[in-house]
This record gives sequence, structure tokens and C-alpha cells, in this order.
Amino acid sequence: MPGKTSTLRIKAPYLVFIGDNEDPTYAKTGYGLVQWVPDKVAGQLRLPGCKVKLDAPDLTLQEAAAQGVKSLVIGVAPVGGGLPEHWNAVVLEAIELGMDIVAGLHTRLSENAEFVAAAREHGVSLVDVRVPPKGIPVGNGQKRAGMRLLTVGTDCAIGKKYTALALTNAMQAAGMNATFRATGQTGIMIAGEGIPMDAVISDFLSGAAELVSPANTPDHWDVVEGQGSLYNPGYAAVTLGLIHGSQPDAMILCHKAGLKEIAGWPGYPVPALNDCMDTYLRAAWLTNPAAKFVGVSVNTSSLDAAERPDYLARIAEETGLPCVDPIAVGVEPLVEHLAATFPKN
Amino acid sequence: MPGKTSTLRIKAPYLVFIGDNEDPTYAKTGYGLVQWVPDKVAGQLRLPGCKVKLDAPDLTLQEAAAQGVKSLVIGVAPVGGGLPEHWNAVVLEAIELGMDIVAGLHTRLSENAEFVAAAREHGVSLVDVRVPPKGIPVGNGQKRAGMRLLTVGTDCAIGKKYTALALTNAMQAAGMNATFRATGQTGIMIAGEGIPMDAVISDFLSGAAELVSPANTPDHWDVVEGQGSLYNPGYAAVTLGLIHGSQPDAMILCHKAGLKEIAGWPGYPVPALNDCMDTYLRAAWLTNPAAKFVGVSVNTSSLDAAERPDYLARIAEETGLPCVDPIAVGVEPLVEHLAATFPKN
Repeated sequence: MPGKTSTLRIKAPYLVFIGDNEDPTYAKTGYGLVQWVPDKVAGQLRLPGCKVKLDAPDLTLQEAAAQGVKSLVIGVAPVGGGLPEHWNAVVLEAIELGMDIVAGLHTRLSENAEFVAAAREHGVSLVDVRVPPKGIPVGNGQKRAGMRLLTVGTDCAIGKKYTALALTNAMQAAGMNATFRATGQTGIMIAGEGIPMDAVISDFLSGAAELVSPANTPDHWDVVEGQGSLYNPGYAAVTLGLIHGSQPDAMILCHKAGLKEIAGWPGYPVPALNDCMDTYLRAAWLTNPAAKFVGVSVNTSSLDAAERPDYLARIAEETGLPCVDPIAVGVEPLVEHLAATFPKN
Repeated sequence: MPGKTSTLRIKAPYLVFIGDNEDPTYAKTGYGLVQWVPDKVAGQLRLPGCKVKLDAPDLTLQEAAAQGVKSLVIGVAPVGGGLPEHWNAVVLEAIELGMDIVAGLHTRLSENAEFVAAAREHGVSLVDVRVPPKGIPVGNGQKRAGMRLLTVGTDCAIGKKYTALALTNAMQAAGMNATFRATGQTGIMIAGEGIPMDAVISDFLSGAAELVSPANTPDHWDVVEGQGSLYNPGYAAVTLGLIHGSQPDAMILCHKAGLKEIAGWPGYPVPALNDCMDTYLRAAWLTNPAAKFVGVSVNTSSLDAAERPDYLARIAEETGLPCVDPIAVGVEPLVEHLAATFPKN
């Protein structure tokens, strides 16, 4: 519909630019793209001296353009938050070759006047995945068709995105009609669309979540990437807006074994899992009184492999729900329970 | 502290500009200023044809400047959201006379290039009270000195600001050390400072609430203007961020007699008062485990005066708390209960 606000959109295929990066920990976005959406990644562009190598063909800008690449995606988080000066020429050349530029840097692409002028001249877009689209409405709270699953957490950064991506793949493999819905910058690059919830003006938070998971066919599942935690005193509001707008039918609780305190907020304890689920359910029931939990997903990397089965079994008993480590065990038990809980969807 | 982010600041005394307004309902800000902070209002400026009259002296711009007026405050909400074209000359003249311009319009003052240039030339500020200050930090959740009271509601627009203002006056009259803390545009004009919470980027909501109610002496009460409602599917996130950041020791529940549905969100019922208080307490306990309710404030304008005493008595019995209509009864019973509940403050 012309003029209607939608989520951010990124055109595939991508050329992933990792510059002359030396440290793989800064190339998480690049690795994530290759891991989750290899079909979207035509190749990687590395400058001389680059120590990082993705599992994707090395392509020059010219080769990528000839193969029909639509977007140059900055796949690293450079130290300092901005683009290193000597990468600018690469970006400008990509623009001249007709590629959109996609980045999630602290310094916006649109703050670079040279990029803006070149993009206008060549009719391409500068997509800052940290910048929400304009015109997001206030949430209307109205029920819409289709099913929604949301990953929520005892804390931030404990696997909500990973779990949602793994669930989406496993649901599709099980023949379910499922789409990953991105609410953060890396997720948006992977999905090729979405809204960075944490950057939305607070009046429009639940409205943004409604846009991210729009009406769909009755059998379709949106698998919505969670944000923050209701137990995080800095970010809980983001979490609540996402819950209210996404109106989840099903939630998966994400947790990290051994976590005692909310990371970065000393003195804030990580809640007991059943208390935590109770809090999320009360919040979710405002916009979907049928919301329920269907499983628990735990990062057990802090445990010995030998301890893991007992630990997961203990949580399953405590919560009455299937409990997995999504990396070590996979999320199939969660999908089976989801399918059994919602037999018509 | 230089460079440290603070709330918005408005310099008094004010000249309240009500233009050639014909409808008093659009001059609510002007009336509110005269009602709550008459000492800040040096006078009003009315154009020919203006049907609205505040209880304040008519002053020309020159007279106001001669009396030391520091800010021209736009005290009306013009139809359309922007400033009528023919008011611009008044604004420009006020700028030339050295006054800051203060407005809470949909169209920002800073979008008018003429205003921006004139303000720069004459060294005055354009204060858009809908625009939060830059540099708001993420909430840290740390306990700070001083006491805080927050008004919360079953719905939006049911007297949270009025109750907070009336409480502040009554607390001061009772010899308590109390300051009204503004979180919305009209409140900011009244207080002369504050942050419009609904316009804050969601990651920084609780941080903004921390800035609004900073550390203070142990006996001091911040009386924080509430926003939205945890039962509003559009705005609940704003409410949660404000609760977490303001860390209320005491809360007052605001309600409107006869309200059945959240206004503007058909199908969303107004909660039972005890359920509602339970929800607010659970939210508040994250950052202040000692938070408690100290009273109920109800707009009973929908009732006959004869019904009011029974109605208020019924709510008092139901909740176990003093219950007043702040306009018809006054808030003194709430202040007495607050003082008795916190005898050292």
C-alpha cells in the first residue's frame, strides 16, 4: 500500500564487507549471515590484511555487481563505532555500482554527506539498521490473524535471537509455516527486514511490534526475536512493548546456566524460572489472554557436557516444560511440544 | 556539571501567548500555568479577536521585556498542530527582545529556519517541550537518596498530573519538602523542567525517569507525574520505564468513576482496583522492593454530588486506603496517610 509504513527492508543477495578486520569477535554479523541465511550471501569482500574469513566466496565489488548483488552489508562492528576512513572508498564504489549500503554502526551512514550525495545520484538506499522507519503508529492492541511465538529471557544477551532462528528453521523442517521476525540489528540483517525495537520512540513501541508481526494466514507462525528482559531495570520497557505488540500465543523462556545477577546491573538477581514465567504471562495476557509458555531454552556453555542432561532434566521438571540447550541438543523437542499444544496450527 | 545531560529547563517569568484563540478548550496549557504556577506568569499576550482570557495581566511584548520576562510560552494547542502563520511575527519579535520561546506543538519550533536563525542571532533558546534532551543514559537501577511518589492510573488521562500537582501543594502546605516532577509537556511548562517520557527512545526510558527524579536529601519527596497505564496496550511500555526509573517509595492510584473500557482501545477492560494495584506493585518492586500504595485519587465528575461520599467510602474499604476526589474533596487525606506511613520523611 503506497505511503504505508512498513519495517526496514534489505535487498538480497548480499556482499558482506569485513574490511581488514583482525578479530573474529567483531565480525559476528558476518558469521551470523553465513550461518543463518547462506543463500542470501553471494560472497565476502576482504581488504588486504584481513584475518577473518567467512565461509563464502571472496568477490570483488565488480564481480559481485556482475552476479546481481543488491546490497553491500557491513558485516563487522569496527572499534569506535564508525566506519574506518579508508573503507569509505569501498562504500562509494559499491554505491556507484548500484548497491544499497547496509550497516548497523553507531555512526549513521546518513551522517556521511558524501554517501548521501552518491546514493541520491545512483538511486540506491543507505539502510541504517539501528534507525527505525518513520511513521510507526501507536499500537492498536487489536487481535490479528495468524499465530505468534516470542522468545523472552531471564536477562539480555542469553540466546533469544539464536533460539528464535533455530526454532524457525526447525519449524520449517517439520513442515510448519514459520517466519523469523527480527527486532534487533543483527536479526534485521539476517531476516532482511524488521525494526530495531530499542531505537523506537517509546510511545510507538507496541505499534512497532505490531508492524513486525503483521496479520497472516491462520496457520502461519511468526517467530519473534525477543529483546531485553522484564527483569532488566534499564531495558524492561522495550521488552514490555514488544510483548504487548507481538501478542504472543506461545513464549519460550531463554536462560543461561549459572547466571546469578542481571549482567551489568549489580544487585539485580536473576529470577527463579517459574516466577519469571509468571511475570511474562501476566504481561502477555493484556493483549493475548491465551498466551502460554511452550518450552525453555538454556545456554549451558558454562557447564561440563556431563552435567548438562541432569541440569536440563531438572529445569524440565521444575517448569513442566521441555527444556533444551539449542546448540548442544537442538530445539526439536520445543517444536514438537509447540505442535502438540497448538494442533490446528 | 558541564556537559552532563539534564532535563529540559524553562526560564521564568513567562509571558503566556494565547494568540487569537476562540475556544478555551485549546488553551488548557495557559489555564494550567495560571492555576498551578501563578508566580511564574507575568502576563498574557492576546491578539485582536481573542476570546480566551486568563487570570493574568495583558502585556505587550515590550512591557513583558521591560518587566524581565524570560520566556514566551505558547499556551495554546492550535488546530493543525503547528503555529498559525500570522503568529510568527510575534515569536520573532519576542526573540529579538531576548526571550526564549517555549512550545509543545506537533511542528517543532526548530523546524522553522527563521526562528532558528533569529534565536542564534539573539542568543535565546527554542524549547520544544515535546523533544527530550540529548544524551539521556540507560537507566542504572541504582538506589538514590530521597523519597519518591508516583501517580499511576487505571487508564491514561484520568488525573495523574492533576493529582501530582495537588499533592505537591498539599505536601508543601503540610511542611513537607516536596517537588513536582514533570514527565509530559504541560507538566514541563508548569514545573519549568522535566522530560517528555513518551518521546524518549525506548532504550533510555528508565534512564530518563532517573534524570527526572535525581538524588536528593533524605527527607525530600519527588512527586512524579505519571504517564499512560500498564493496562493500556499502546502506552504501557512508557509507564513501565517511568516506574522502573522513578523507583517510587509510594504510589497513588488514579481512576475515573464509571470507566469501563480503556479510552480509545475498545475491548480492553478497565481493571479492578486491587488487581491494578497488584500489577503496579509487581512492576515497581523490581527497582524498589519497598514500594507501596498510599491512596486512591478518583475523578468522580460522572457522579451526582450526592453519590460521591458513598462511592469514595466504598473504594476506601475495597482498597484499604484513603480515597479522595482531588477536586471535590482535596488530597489532604492522602498526604496525612503518606506522612503517617513514612514518619521519618
